Order: sequence, then structure tokens, then C-alpha cells
Amino acid sequence: MGMVGGGEGAFIGEVHRMAAALDGKIDLVCGAFSSDPDRALRSGLALGLDEQRCYPSFEAMLTAEAALPATERMQFVAIVTPNHLHFPIAQAALEAGFHVLSDKPATFDLAQALALRDIVAATGQLYGLTHTYNGYPLVKEARERIARGELGVVRKVVVEYPQGWLADRQEDADNKQAEWRLDPTRAGVSSCMGDIGVHAANLAEYVSGLQIEDICADLTAFVEGRTLDDDGSILLRFGGGAKGLLHASQVCVGEENALRIRVYGTLGGLEWSQQEPNTLWLKWPDRPTQMLRTGGGYLGAMAAANTRTPMGHPEGYLEAFANLYVAFAGQINAVEQGVAPDARSADCPGIAEAVRGMAFIELAVRAGSSDIKWHRLEHL
Amino acid sequence: MGMVGGGEGAFIGEVHRMAAALDGKIDLVCGAFSSDPDRALRSGLALGLDEQRCYPSFEAMLTAEAALPATERMQFVAIVTPNHLHFPIAQAALEAGFHVLSDKPATFDLAQALALRDIVAATGQLYGLTHTYNGYPLVKEARERIARGELGVVRKVVVEYPQGWLADRQEDADNKQAEWRLDPTRAGVSSCMGDIGVHAANLAEYVSGLQIEDICADLTAFVEGRTLDDDGSILLRFGGGAKGLLHASQVCVGEENALRIRVYGTLGGLEWSQQEPNTLWLKWPDRPTQMLRTGGGYLGAMAAANTRTPMGHPEGYLEAFANLYVAFAGQINAVEQGVAPDARSADCPGIAEAVRGMAFIELAVRAGSSDIKWHRLEHL
Amino acid sequence: MGMVGGGEGAFIGEVHRMAAALDGKIDLVCGAFSSDPDRALRSGLALGLDEQRCYPSFEAMLTAEAALPATERMQFVAIVTPNHLHFPIAQAALEAGFHVLSDKPATFDLAQALALRDIVAATGQLYGLTHTYNGYPLVKEARERIARGELGVVRKVVVEYPQGWLADRQEDADNKQAEWRLDPTRAGVSSCMGDIGVHAANLAEYVSGLQIEDICADLTAFVEGRTLDDDGSILLRFGGGAKGLLHASQVCVGEENALRIRVYGTLGGLEWSQQEPNTLWLKWPDRPTQMLRTGGGYLGAMAAANTRTPMGHPEGYLEAFANLYVAFAGQINAVEQGVAPDARSADCPGIAEAVRGMAFIELAVRAGSSDIKWHRLEHL
Amino acid sequence: MGMVGGGEGAFIGEVHRMAAALDGKIDLVCGAFSSDPDRALRSGLALGLDEQRCYPSFEAMLTAEAALPATERMQFVAIVTPNHLHFPIAQAALEAGFHVLSDKPATFDLAQALALRDIVAATGQLYGLTHTYNGYPLVKEARERIARGELGVVRKVVVEYPQGWLADRQEDADNKQAEWRLDPTRAGVSSCMGDIGVHAANLAEYVSGLQIEDICADLTAFVEGRTLDDDGSILLRFGGGAKGLLHASQVCVGEENALRIRVYGTLGGLEWSQQEPNTLWLKWPDRPTQMLRTGGGYLGAMAAANTRTPMGHPEGYLEAFANLYVAFAGQINAVEQGVAPDARSADCPGIAEAVRGMAFIELAVRAGSSDIKWHRLEHL
Repeated sequence: MGMVGGGEGAFIGEVHRMAAALDGKIDLVCGAFSSDPDRALRSGLALGLDEQRCYPSFEAMLTAEAALPATERMQFVAIVTPNHLHFPIAQAALEAGFHVLSDKPATFDLAQALALRDIVAATGQLYGLTHTYNGYPLVKEARERIARGELGVVRKVVVEYPQGWLADRQEDADNKQAEWRLDPTRAGVSSCMGDIGVHAANLAEYVSGLQIEDICADLTAFVEGRTLDDDGSILLRFGGGAKGLLHASQVCVGEENALRIRVYGTLGGLEWSQQEPNTLWLKWPDRPTQMLRTGGGYLGAMAAANTRTPMGHPEGYLEAFANLYVAFAGQINAVEQGVAPDARSADCPGIAEAVRGMAFIELAVRAGSSDIKWHRLEHL
Repeated sequence: MGMVGGGEGAFIGEVHRMAAALDGKIDLVCGAFSSDPDRALRSGLALGLDEQRCYPSFEAMLTAEAALPATERMQFVAIVTPNHLHFPIAQAALEAGFHVLSDKPATFDLAQALALRDIVAATGQLYGLTHTYNGYPLVKEARERIARGELGVVRKVVVEYPQGWLADRQEDADNKQAEWRLDPTRAGVSSCMGDIGVHAANLAEYVSGLQIEDICADLTAFVEGRTLDDDGSILLRFGGGAKGLLHASQVCVGEENALRIRVYGTLGGLEWSQQEPNTLWLKWPDRPTQMLRTGGGYLGAMAAANTRTPMGHPEGYLEAFANLYVAFAGQINAVEQGVAPDARSADCPGIAEAVRGMAFIELAVRAGSSDIKWHRLEHL
Repeated sequence: MGMVGGGEGAFIGEVHRMAAALDGKIDLVCGAFSSDPDRALRSGLALGLDEQRCYPSFEAMLTAEAALPATERMQFVAIVTPNHLHFPIAQAALEAGFHVLSDKPATFDLAQALALRDIVAATGQLYGLTHTYNGYPLVKEARERIARGELGVVRKVVVEYPQGWLADRQEDADNKQAEWRLDPTRAGVSSCMGDIGVHAANLAEYVSGLQIEDICADLTAFVEGRTLDDDGSILLRFGGGAKGLLHASQVCVGEENALRIRVYGTLGGLEWSQQEPNTLWLKWPDRPTQMLRTGGGYLGAMAAANTRTPMGHPEGYLEAFANLYVAFAGQINAVEQGVAPDARSADCPGIAEAVRGMAFIELAVRAGSSDIKWHRLEHL
Repeated sequence: MGMVGGGEGAFIGEVHRMAAALDGKIDLVCGAFSSDPDRALRSGLALGLDEQRCYPSFEAMLTAEAALPATERMQFVAIVTPNHLHFPIAQAALEAGFHVLSDKPATFDLAQALALRDIVAATGQLYGLTHTYNGYPLVKEARERIARGELGVVRKVVVEYPQGWLADRQEDADNKQAEWRLDPTRAGVSSCMGDIGVHAANLAEYVSGLQIEDICADLTAFVEGRTLDDDGSILLRFGGGAKGLLHASQVCVGEENALRIRVYGTLGGLEWSQQEPNTLWLKWPDRPTQMLRTGGGYLGAMAAANTRTPMGHPEGYLEAFANLYVAFAGQINAVEQGVAPDARSADCPGIAEAVRGMAFIELAVRAGSSDIKWHRLEHL
């Protein structure tokens, strides 16, 4: 693969590289790691790349790689820049004939996401989106059990993602991660919903198998001087009559990445927390609560296929991330072999989730400052 | 004390009796345990009361006890009936010259609560309301620490009370607790908000020291045939700019009494769960999370005064309940001695919480089915 | 009941009184609360007793109460003094015709325990011993499930009771609880094993249904100047081939009363912790771990009979303690009615546990400083 | 690197490969993956190796690689075979001029470990041993805090490693992992102590900074037909007067890899569990317990240097394993640059731990069936 973004000091680029490397099947062969050519070169060399494949810009990378023989050139582009660059890079890569695996949110705004969908369709290239939390084996187990009706008809979905790291003005403290996430010209219309609320919404839909239909939101910028939300609470109504709550915040002091989901149906409930990802709780009206564990022999095929170590040897965030890479690589292999991807490979968020995520973010912001109670999340 | 309600097979009456008995300072001397005179007598005898003080009705009890010499008659009345009887009994008791400690919600509706406030004022008797969860030592510790500014300015309050016991039609299953709670003629306008949502709202205000000002609600009756809500999600806005969420449900299958509160301020956060009530978490931006424990020498005076066993010997629900009885008894003693109650005795919910709770319940129901987003919770 | 010991400032006496009072069925009618007559009187009056039943000595109490009509006098004596007084008081009470419920350890040494057994047999009075932890509903559930073979044949028992409160010289810090526990003339041959190790050994036998046969011990007095152990580690061999470990300590800084037991059989395992007593874990080779909860409808009759509140309203140490009082009172009632006690009433530690506990303590001390590896715990 | 062992279906070989790959700095360039040449080739090709570097035996690999130019040949050998092959492979590799990173236990018996120490000294090559659990950031934090005296003088170390996977005759169930571990000709003198007890002993010494001096053991083969222990309990005495317990078992049904360590000193205590590796508990006599978390800004330099993701994005077993690879690779780089390794690189178990581990295993087995109580663990 080739990477755009993720030069020295970047956080998510390094995560992508480790996730790609973990299984020893995906090689980083080139990159445009920074818009500063010196930094781009330095970053690439530090990663052990050939100097000539440390490109000064993504345009240069796409041109040069496309000119290489098919067996030598990169097979896909991983995009790990701030949000506002996702779209132009993805567009250029897809149109240059490369598959794209992009960090989320997919684009700067919904209009771009809709345009991107057209481009994906037109180019016939693959597009993946790293909604990391879908990659955890027990998230897949939760989804499977709900899909097969173990919990009965879903009534309630409670999803939350509190963080605390932006509770003060980190954007003034030389914190690059904070800076661009709170800058409307780079992050888009939202900080909290764009960065983590969209993960929570995606997880709620992925696990429950339901679609959010209407939302009622209260968004806030708690820290003085901010123009983008750093906190939000949202009432959810799903298709089929289920209801829910979504809570995301960047100002819940002392919280780390406390993404947690609970789903309750007519027959049972379940609970999963990202910070203890190897445990899934199943709750019943008249039987003891069950604690399912990653690697358990009683888990379904999808959980098993996404697990690397035996029960009791904990897996974490990088393994979940790597699962998305494995799936996306599996899709590429399937395309190259002219076959349909298997279930595991197919299970990677794509352009549909990209559009849906951007629609959610924009609607959340609109609803968050509206006097109207309910806002419809259109199926675009 | 004398008790109204709580005959054979009742749940909350037995809880009140154990809470009153625990410290060996409050004697149950009489009761009107049932509207069925035989059952009333049988219940009283089983509790070891004198036959002549097992009254067939609360009216009989009030008359007879008022006629006894001051040193012999009951000092206060505990009301543990279904909701619709709280008001007439409280009114009669107060007007007969007895203090009243009532189970919650205080009355059948807000109008009654306002009337009750006038009666309390007119009679000069004491009135207490058993918002049990306030009785836990670490809830008091949480309140104290927020009041003294340890968390800075409060920004966010997340309170939830999921239960699962009404996820199916228990009201048809000869479950008396379910029957009256879902019957509008006995429970009032709400099941879920009236039974547990009001506890959550009370806890949020008690711990945070803030007042709910506006709410936006979505209430549901998930189980077919119900006319009262069995689930609700509410966005909260507090005075001073803090925001919050309240989630209460009786259909979250597999949940017990999972009342939990989290409060986040500019400097720190805290978390407490009723099912593990002897632990209070304090969270900080740059220091390790702290685990405070009931009985810890580092706790404040109010927590210490409400604790009976050393650290590591767990206390529970009955001890919390007993703390309200101790406080209320302390108020009575203070009145009798003509002095002001000490801080511990004063710390028992009263008529102000009664009015506020009923206002919250009615507003939640109104807002829950309204198309208007925000509804003001008046200070009545 | 009447009480010996437990005057002003005492810890365990107050616990006994609350445990006895909780269910409103046992009245404290008299006491000899202190060997200091003034303090004894003051303590009794503060508890609301009649002045003439606040006795200056246990001898006076026994004489005076025995002289009262049967319907008026106390029905049993609760002994809550330091260890060295347990035996003479129990002997006198039994011989005066009163049942005895004693705090543990039963006596000052094994010889006294054996003598006490003879006295119990000779007098025909009831004798109970407050091994509190047996009183928890889920401990009873654990015992029942093992007894009925759910775990298969038991192989391994791991029991531990770390505390930290004696990690420094509390005995010099005006801490009365520490003073007598570390004084060989009042505590006996052991501090740690006598105070908490014996609880752990009792719990191991009670839950597993097995008997300890051989022990290999390493006992230590870590804090300078102590002549009694404040820490010990013991290898256990049980009848039937099971093995185990027992760890008890008073110097594990920061631990509270972290009594915990794990039992593993051929088919399954279980785990229970005193500090979270309302949860019992069942572990299986090929199925998810199950979390059983106090009050769960799936629990056995003995657990249900020892539970006061619904699932999710936590019970604690005082409720467990009260369960022993209820059982002992049930035995007294059965004797008075000339019938056999029911299963719940029978389930209270008695003279057999008294002898066994003292034998364990003495053997642990002997083994702890011996060069011989294994020491037989005789069935006396 | 080159790998010996770890062909199709192997567990630990795959773990080593992922650990080595994670950071993108160590390439697997060759291997002798099986003693079956077809399987060896097939395994290597599946890993994407050049056919000519998929060797049919470790001898062939060493010869061929040694003949390559220094810039092309493998830099070190990772040994991931069953125990009995560790020594001959390590010897051959070291003598062929390659560094060796070996899975544990280091050798088949102590004599081999001592011989290996001489070979390491004679050849001057580097030797590393994958005591994985040392690689967790919070284990390093625990070690650092004890080393700097935060807990005062250490008094007690409690370490346990219960597993349940060998509670029945897995060795008859076509479970290759079980087969060789219970076969004395491949595993050595011990199953439980050799496989996991030695990890526990190593962790106890690594974290506490103390050395085990004497042990008293009870080892058992619970499952019929086994000649090697599947369970063991050990009393420990450390240099300096600290005491401890070690419990390891393969028959604790339902346990996964529940390695846990608790250390108590005169000033404080700590606790860490492998199954929730991102939390470290610090316990104090008079202050709230503290919860330290991987990635926390308050952690020391060694923990920080061994962490890849921000606080709240959990790391696991593979990341810990990778930390050992990073350290060992750092040692190689230092040697090649002629400098001393930095602190992070130096922090990898080596030949000293190899000898010590084998001495522990052999002594545990000897002590476990001995009538003598205490056995000295010599400093060899």
C-alpha cells in the first residue's frame, strides 16, 4: 500500500501502519507523508522506504505509481490526513485506478461524500472506511447474535463515547491533534460529532442492524472560544420502532475512549465497552448474565475469524484496526481473482457508511441548534 | 412509629420496617397495614404488635393514637401504600398532629403535592420523603465534593436508571408490584418516570447541586397494551449552563436497579453506581483515577456519619434507607428539644423535593409526547 | 437477648446489635456491656435499656435474668468481648440455662473449645458462632451448587483474606481493636490466623463441603515488636484429594476485607468476593462464565430465604450477619416448640465449627514455625 | 529474522511473527518451519518467503544464511519449537554467528541452560528469552515504582497464573499444544511449572526486584494418567525477608490466562492482571486507591516507551510481545553500532533469566514431591 499523510509526529498514520503490518501480509511500499517535501522524505526514509518512493505530494505519488508495472506498484492508498483532504485525495486516487482505504470521517461535508459515491461507482475501485470499532471480534459477535434474533425485537440502543482530552484549550497548547479537530476549515462542521459521535452512530447501526431515522439533539461548545461542538446528547429513533440515546463528549474530564454500547430487545440485552473489548455481556430476564470472551469456543465464525490470540491473551485496538485492513485486503484479492469476497472480507465499512456518516454529522449539527424537536436522517 | 400500608406480601413496607429497626432506635408501635381489616390485623400480629394497635384503617389509627398520652402514642407515620393513597393519608396524619415520612412519589399528581406543601406549612409538622439513594454515604460524599468545588464548574450530568423487570406483561402475571405501577388510577400519569425516573432526577440535582431548568423528552410504552410509559430518555439543561441526559427504563431486559450517575466539571469528574454503592470514582485530567470507598478515613463528615461498618464490609440499600430514617428521627428529636436539627438530620428529602418530583414527572410525560423540543421545569 | 461486651466505642458489639435488630424480631433486653460498671450502665442506657437490666458484670446478669419469669428473661446471650473472655462467659451462661451466640474465635485456645463442647452437650443449650461470611446468600448458593455436584469433583480451593490495617504499629496508636488482637494474653496464640485466617478456613470448608486434612504453613510477624503473626500463607490438602491455598494477612497495605474464595472442580469453577458479595461467578470449560446475583429467581431456596431485597438493591455485611441471628433465633424457636429446626435455622455455625476453628488456629501457628512440611488437622 | 518452528497450525510461531511485524521494522526473511520438509516449504510460501529461503531444517538454514552476504542474511533466529529443541537450535545458531531470541522455557533442563550460558559467553552473540508478560507497559511501571521505593520495603508478593484448558485429557483430543506440553520427552520435567509457573516466578522477580531464595511446594497431576504436574502451589521466601505465594494451574476450569500479581510493601501495595493489562492499581493505607492506565501522562519513561496507542485504546498481548522484539532488535542495532543498548533495549530477558527459570522449574518439581519443607533456589 501507499500512504498519504501520517508523517513524523502524526498519530493515526502510525496506527494505520501498525494495523497494516501486523499480519505480515500488507507492505507499505510508498507514501506522501507530508505536504512539506523534506518532512515527507524524512518520514518515508525513517520507515525504511526507497527514497524514490517517498513522494513530495499525493499527486506525484499517484502519477509515479500508476506508471509502474502492475506487479510493482502499490495496490491501494491509505488516507490518514486531516478531514478536509480526504476527498481530493480519494478522488484522485480512485480516478488514477487505485483502491482507497480512508480514515473517517469520509469527507469534509456531505456533498463531498455524495460526490465520492459517484466517483467510486464510476471508477469501479474499492473504497473502505476505518470505523475501527467494527473490527473488534466481540462487536461482530454482538451484531451476529442480534441479527439472528437472540435478543428478540430490539427496543432500545444506548451508545456513548465520552472523552476528556479537550476539556480545556488544548488547541492553544501546541496539540496538533486538537488544533485541526477544532478548526472548521480542516475538521468540517463538527468536532465532537465528526470525530467520535459518528463512530458511536455507526456502531449503533452496525451492532443493532437498525437504521437511525430521526434524531433530536443538543450540541454544545463548552470551552470558551470554540466554534465547533465539543459535546452532544442525541435522542434516537430507529426504523422498526426502537429508540435510543447517543452521548458523545470531548469534555468529560478523566474519560479516555469510553465507547460503550448497550442494546435491549424483547428477549435479552447486551453490553460491550471498547476499553474492555474482550468481554461481551449478555443479559437475560430469568437467567444469569453471561460473560462472553474473545477467543471463546462458543463464539460465531465471524468473531473467530477476526481473533489472533487464545482466550485470555487480550487483544486491543490495533488488532481491531488490523481486522479492517485484512478485510479490505481480502476484497482486493477477491477483485483480482474475479470472485466475490468472502463474508469476512466483505465486512468492512465502505462508501455507504461514508455517506451515512457525513449525513449524520451534518444533521446532528443542524438539529443541535434547532428549536424543532425531531429531524429526519434521510436515506440518501 | 406507625405504618400505613405494608401488609403481608408487600415489598416496600418491609424495607421501611427493616430500615427503621436497624439502629434499634425506632420502634414500630402500630399500623394500618391493609384496607382489608383481617389482613391488617394478621399482618400486625405477625410483626409482634399489640392487637389493639393493629388498626383496620389509617383513619382509625390516627384517631386512636392521637387519643393516647404523648409519651405512648406513635411519633410519626410512615406511608408505604401505592401512590394514589399517599396524599389523603399524609394530609390526615399531618392534620392529626403527626409527622409524616412518605414513600415516593409524594402524591398522585402535582396539584396534590402543592396542596400538601400548604398543609405541611399550616400544620407545622415534619414531612420526609424516602428518596433512598440520597442515603448512601458515597452519594453524600459526591455531593459534598462538588459543593466545595473539587470538580470545578459542572458541565455535564449523565444519570441513568435502567431496569428490566417490566419487559413483558408482568401486570398480567399476578405481580402486584407491576399491577399498580402500570395502573393509571393508582400510579398516576407515569410508570417509569414516576417510579424510577424521579429518583434519577432527584439524584442528579442532589449530587450536582444544580437545578434542572429545561427538558426534552421521548417517552415510550414499549409493551403492548400499556397506557403508561415504561421507558424514557430525556435531555436536560441545568441552571448555570450545565447539560445532561437522563435515561430510565423498565424494559432494559436483564438490568436490575442500575442507577448510575456521572458528573463532569471543568476540573474533574465523578461516577457512582447504586449496584456497587461502596465505591466512588474521581477522575482527573492528568492524574490517576481515584477509587474512594465507604468507610475510608479520607471521606468527609457526612459520609462518615452515615456509615456503620468498617471499610471493606459492604453496606447496601437497607443501610442507605436507614440513613433517611435516622435523619428524619433526628429532625423529630430536634423539634421536641426545640433546637435546630444538625447537618446529618437536616439531610433528608422533604416537601420541596416532593413538589419538585411531581413537577418533574408531569412535565416529563407532557414533554415526552410533545412536538415542542424544550419544556421549562418551573420553580413552583 | 442479652449482651456481654460491646460497650461504648466497641465495634463488633454494635454490629451484633444491628444484625439482631434488622428484622424486628429480636429485642435486646439487657446487657453487661463493660467490666467498668459506670461504662456498662452508660452504654446500656444509651441503648434504651431499663436501668435495672444494665448489669455491672456478666455474672450479675446471669443471676438476675435467671431469676426472672421465663416470659420476661432474655432468651440467649450474645458474647462480643475480646477472645480470652469468650469461654468463661459462655460456660457461665450455658450453665445458667441460657443459649449462647458467640463471636469468633470461639475460645482462647483449643483446650477451652473442647471443654466448651462438653458443656454444651451437658447443658443441652444451643451454641452458635458468628462466622459471618457464611451468612451471605451467595455463599450458601455456592455451597449448595457444589454439594449437588455442579462443579464435579472438587480439585482446588483458593481462599484468601488480605487486610492492611495492621501494616504499622496500630497497637501503639490508641487503636483498641489492634491492641487486644496483638496481645497474646487476650487474643490467644495468633493474631492474623485467629482473627481472619480462621474465617477463611471456615469458608473454604463450608463452601467446598470438604475437610482440611493437612496443612503446610509459613506465618510471619512482619511488624517489629510483634509476638503474634500478622500474616500467613498455608498450603492445604483436603479429604478426597483436593488441594488448596489459604492466604491471610493484616499487612497487605491498602486491602480492606478482601476475603475471596475460588473453587475448581472437574466440571466447573466458582468465585465469590466478600467486597462484592452480591455476585457469584460460575465458570465453565466450554460455555460463557455466568454472573449470578443476589435475589436472582434462578437461585436456590437457601439463598432466597436469606435475602431481603430485590435483585439490584445491594445487601451487605449486616444482612449477612443478621442471617446468622435469624438462623440462631429459629433454632431457639424450634427448641421451644419441641421440633427440629428447619434447614434455614439449622444453617448456623455451632460448637463443631468452634472446635474445628480453634484446632486450625493452633495448628497453623505450630506448623507456621515448624521445619516439618505437613501437619495433620485432627478431627477432634 | 529467520524462524525455526512455527509451521502451519502452530500457535506461538504465529504470535512471534505478528509481534515482530507490528512495528514494520523487523522482516521475516527465512525459516525452517517444520521438520517435515514439505510442510516447511508450504508454510514458508504461505508467509510470502522466497522459496529458496524456506529451509527443510534449521541446520540447512544456518548454513545457507551464513553463506549469504552480511547485508542479506538474517540477523537473528527466533526459536518457537517445543521445549526439547530449544537448546540444540540455539547452540547451533549461536555458534553459526547468529543472535537468538528463544521462546521459553529456555531449554529442556537446567544442565542445558548452564551449557547455553557458556555458549552465549563464548560466542559473544546476543540471547533473548520471551517472557512476554515483562513486555506490558504497566508491568514495567510497577517494577519502576517499586525500584524507586514508592511501596517502601516489600513484604509480600502474591502471584498466580490459573488456566483451565488442561482440566480434562486434551492430550487425547488431538490438541497438539496439549500433547507436547504433557509429554516428558518434549516438555521436560514439568508441564504446569514449565509452561506457566516459570512465567509467574519470573514476573514476581521482575516486578519486585527481589530474588526467590527458598520455596516450599505442593505439585499435583490431577488428571488421570499424567506424569507431569498440571497444578502447583508454592510458598516463597525472598531475599531481604519478603514472603510470597505462587499459584499456577492448568486445571482451574474456566480460567483463561489469569496471571495476576500483587505486591505489598511497608508503604503501599500494587496489583496488575494480565487479562486487564492496561490498568495498574496502587493501594495506600490512608488515601484512595489509584487506577493507573496505559498511556497515562503520569507514567514513567519505560512505560511510555513501550506504549503505542493513546490512553483508552487498549493494548494487549501482541503489543507486549512486540515490545520484547523491539528491545532485542535494539540490542542488535547497538551491537552493530558498537554502542551500549539504551535502557529500553536492555530491558529484555536474557540468558540469566534462562538459567534462573530452568533452576526454578527443576526445584519446584523436586520440592513438590519432597517431604522436606524448604528448598533453596541457588544463584547459579
